[in-house]
Amino acid sequence: MAIAVSSVADTCAAAKRAARTLAQTDTAVKDAALEEIALALESRLEEILIANERDMQLAREADIGAALLDRLRLDEERVVAIAHAVRQIAALADPIGEVISGQRLPNGLDVRKVRVPLGVVAVVYEARPNVTIDAAALCLKSGNAIVLRGSSSATHSNAALAQIAGDAAVAAGLPDGCVSLVSGGGRQELAELATQRDSVDLIIPRGGEGLKDALQAVATVPVIYAASGNCHVYVDAAADLDQALAIVLNAKTQRPGVCNAAETLLVHERVAADFLPRVLGALAAAGVHVRADERAHHAIAPSGAIPDLIIEDATDEDWATEYLAPIIAVGVVDSVEHAIEHVARHGSGHSEAIVTRDTAAARAFQLGVDAACVYVNASTRFTDGGEFGMGAEIGNSTQKLHARGPIGLRELCTFKYLVEGDGHVRA
Amino acid sequence: MAIAVSSVADTCAAAKRAARTLAQTDTAVKDAALEEIALALESRLEEILIANERDMQLAREADIGAALLDRLRLDEERVVAIAHAVRQIAALADPIGEVISGQRLPNGLDVRKVRVPLGVVAVVYEARPNVTIDAAALCLKSGNAIVLRGSSSATHSNAALAQIAGDAAVAAGLPDGCVSLVSGGGRQELAELATQRDSVDLIIPRGGEGLKDALQAVATVPVIYAASGNCHVYVDAAADLDQALAIVLNAKTQRPGVCNAAETLLVHERVAADFLPRVLGALAAAGVHVRADERAHHAIAPSGAIPDLIIEDATDEDWATEYLAPIIAVGVVDSVEHAIEHVARHGSGHSEAIVTRDTAAARAFQLGVDAACVYVNASTRFTDGGEFGMGAEIGNSTQKLHARGPIGLRELCTFKYLVEGDGHVRA
Repeated sequence: MAIAVSSVADTCAAAKRAARTLAQTDTAVKDAALEEIALALESRLEEILIANERDMQLAREADIGAALLDRLRLDEERVVAIAHAVRQIAALADPIGEVISGQRLPNGLDVRKVRVPLGVVAVVYEARPNVTIDAAALCLKSGNAIVLRGSSSATHSNAALAQIAGDAAVAAGLPDGCVSLVSGGGRQELAELATQRDSVDLIIPRGGEGLKDALQAVATVPVIYAASGNCHVYVDAAADLDQALAIVLNAKTQRPGVCNAAETLLVHERVAADFLPRVLGALAAAGVHVRADERAHHAIAPSGAIPDLIIEDATDEDWATEYLAPIIAVGVVDSVEHAIEHVARHGSGHSEAIVTRDTAAARAFQLGVDAACVYVNASTRFTDGGEFGMGAEIGNSTQKLHARGPIGLRELCTFKYLVEGDGHVRA
Repeated sequence: MAIAVSSVADTCAAAKRAARTLAQTDTAVKDAALEEIALALESRLEEILIANERDMQLAREADIGAALLDRLRLDEERVVAIAHAVRQIAALADPIGEVISGQRLPNGLDVRKVRVPLGVVAVVYEARPNVTIDAAALCLKSGNAIVLRGSSSATHSNAALAQIAGDAAVAAGLPDGCVSLVSGGGRQELAELATQRDSVDLIIPRGGEGLKDALQAVATVPVIYAASGNCHVYVDAAADLDQALAIVLNAKTQRPGVCNAAETLLVHERVAADFLPRVLGALAAAGVHVRADERAHHAIAPSGAIPDLIIEDATDEDWATEYLAPIIAVGVVDSVEHAIEHVARHGSGHSEAIVTRDTAAARAFQLGVDAACVYVNASTRFTDGGEFGMGAEIGNSTQKLHARGPIGLRELCTFKYLVEGDGHVRA
C-alpha cells in the first residue's frame, strides 16, 4: 500500500524515507515502474472511470459549470493518453547522476558536480486529475518521492489514480511511500503541507492565483510558483511583415488560454500604417477583439473600415492584463528601446518576441528584455518543456532562482559536489 | 553620488534601475570599475580609518568584547587586503553571457540557455566591514546591483566603504545606484528590505542564527540562507589510518570556528581500538576536548591513559551540535551504512567525509549521503569557493534550490533562454 491515510506530517515523513531509497534506485528500475504504472492505468480503467463518475456526479450537483466539468472528466481515451504520457516520460534520459561540471583542482582533488534528486516534491493542483499521474511520473523518473494534494472536486478520481500509481510503483520495486496523496480540501491541510520543512524539499502549485496567494501566505517550504504570462510580440521597423503576421496570429490565436500566448502587440511606427490594417484584419477574422492605443487607431484610420474588427481604446490596465482570451492590446512604439521599456514595465518575465531582420534590433531586444524566454522571429508559443526538448514539464517558472522557464526533469533535481582525494588536507 | 540616503524602497528602486544598465555592461567596464574601487580604497585610506575609529570608540564604550572589537577593526594592512581581494575578483572570468547549454530543435529553432545577472542582490551582514566591499565586488562583477545593510556597530565604517565603492564605480562608468547602503539598525528597516518584491531579486544574510530567524519571519523576497555546518568525518574499516589521522586533525583543528570544520568523528568498530587512541591523543595534544559514546570509551580503555585528554560522555545533543570550537563528538559505528544513517539523522547537509581504501564503501557513502559536498579521503575544510576554483564566495548554501555549497559568481546569476528562428510558428 503506497497511499497513506495518515496525517500530513506522517505522510511527508514516509515520503522522505522513500526518497532516500529512490535517490539510489537505478534508471532501469524507475523506468520499469513507470511502465507498470502505464499498464495498471489500462488494466484498472474501470476502477478509474467509476471513481471519476462519482466526482462528476457531485460536480454536476454542485453545478460547477461546463468548462470545469470538462477538465474533471475522464474517459477511456483520456486515460489511454495519460498512460501514453507516462511511457513518454519513461523514455526520457534520466537526469540523475549527470555530471554537470567537473575538474581537477591544482592540489589534485577531483571535484564533480553531479545531479541528484531533490528528495520530496509536493504538487498542489486543481481540477484536472491527469496531473496526478503526470506529476507522479516526472517525480519518480527524477528520483523524487511525491506528495500529491488535489482539489476536493476530484477527490475520488485522484484517490483511484494515486492508489493505482502507488501500487504499481511498489510492485515494480520502488519504495513504499514514493507516491502519496493527502486528501484535497481544507486550507488547514494545505498549511500543514506547506510547513513540513523537515521532509518536503519543494512545493509546486499548479492552479490559479487563489491557490498561489493561499500558499504564499503560509509556506515555509520552498515554492516554485508557476507563471502567469503577459507576453508581447514586438514587430520592428525592419520586420518581414509576412513573418510578423504569421507569428502574431500564432502567438495570439493558436491557443489563447495558455500562459505563453501573446497578450500585447507592439508595432514600430514606421511599419504601423502598413502592418496594422493587415494584422488587425486577420485577428478580427480569427475572432480576436482589439484594445488599441491612440497611435494604433491613428495608423489604421486611412485604410478605412476593417471587416469584423471589434476595437476599443486601450487603458493602462490593458497593458498589464493577461487576458487568456481572444483579446489583444495593441500599441505603436518609436523604437526597439521603447518596446523594451514597455516590456520591462508591463511584462511578467515569461516569453517575449521580436520580429525583425535587423541584427542590431534583435541583439538589443535579447540583451535588454529580462524574461525566461526571448524570441527572435518566432512565436512565444514555443515556451514549453516538450518543445524545448525536455520531454515534459510540470509547469513554467517566471521566477529567477533555481528554475526559470519550463520545469522539466532536471529542474526537479539539485546537485552535490563529489570530491575525491588521497589524504588531502587544507594547508 | 552612488549612496542613497532615501527610504529603503527608494534605494531598492534606484538599484533596480541601475541593474538594467549593469546587465548590459561589458566585462571590461566592470573590471575597470573594480580596479577603480581598489585604487580608491588605497587612496582614501585615511577616511576609512577615521570612520572605523569612530565605530571602534563607540564599540569600546559599549563594551562589546575583544572578539567583536577585532572583527570590527580596520587598519592599513586589512584595507590593503580588501583592495587585493577586489582585484582578485576583477581577474575572475565573467559569468555573464556564458552559454550553459544550447541546441537546434527538430523544427530548426536555435535555443541557447545563457547566464544573465539576477538583478538586485541585497546582502545583510554583521560586524566585519570588509563584507561591504567583498559583497559589492562580487555583485558588480556578476552584473548585479547591490543593496547593503550592515550592522549598527559598523555604521561609520560601512558608510565610508560603500561611499568609496559607489563613487569609484560610478566614476568608472557604472550606473548611479549600483552600490547602495541602507543604514544598519532597526528590524523595521530589515523587514522593509526583505519585502521589496518588485525590486530585490535575492537576499543573502551573512550572520548568526538571530539574523536568519529575523529574516525568515518577514521575508517575501527570495533568501539564500548561509549554512550551518554539522560536518562529519567517518573513518572506515578499510581506511589508511595515517591519512585518517591527518584528515581528522585538519578538519577539526585547522580552523575550528568555520562552517566546514568537522564536529563529529565516526569510526568503524574494526579499527576503533587501533585508531581511536592515536587520534584522540593527537586531538588532545592540539587542545581539542572529546565527547565520546560508550563504544568509543570502551575502545580506548585497553590502551590506558592518553596524555592531556579531556573526555566526557557524548549526549544526544552532542550529535546535533555545531561546536565551532575545539570540541569533537566521537562515536563508533558498525558499518558504512550505520555511518550514513548517523549523518542523515544529525548532519546539516554541508560537508561530509569518508576515509577508506574500499571502493564499495566510498561509493555507498557518496551515493547515500545527502549533502552539498561529499568527500572521499579528503578534509571537509575544502568546501570553499576559493578552493573549488570559483575564485571567491559570498557564503555557503546548505539549501537545495538554486545554490548548494559555495555561492560564487555563477550562483549570483540566473539565466534566460534565447530562441532564434526564421518565422517559426507552433503547429
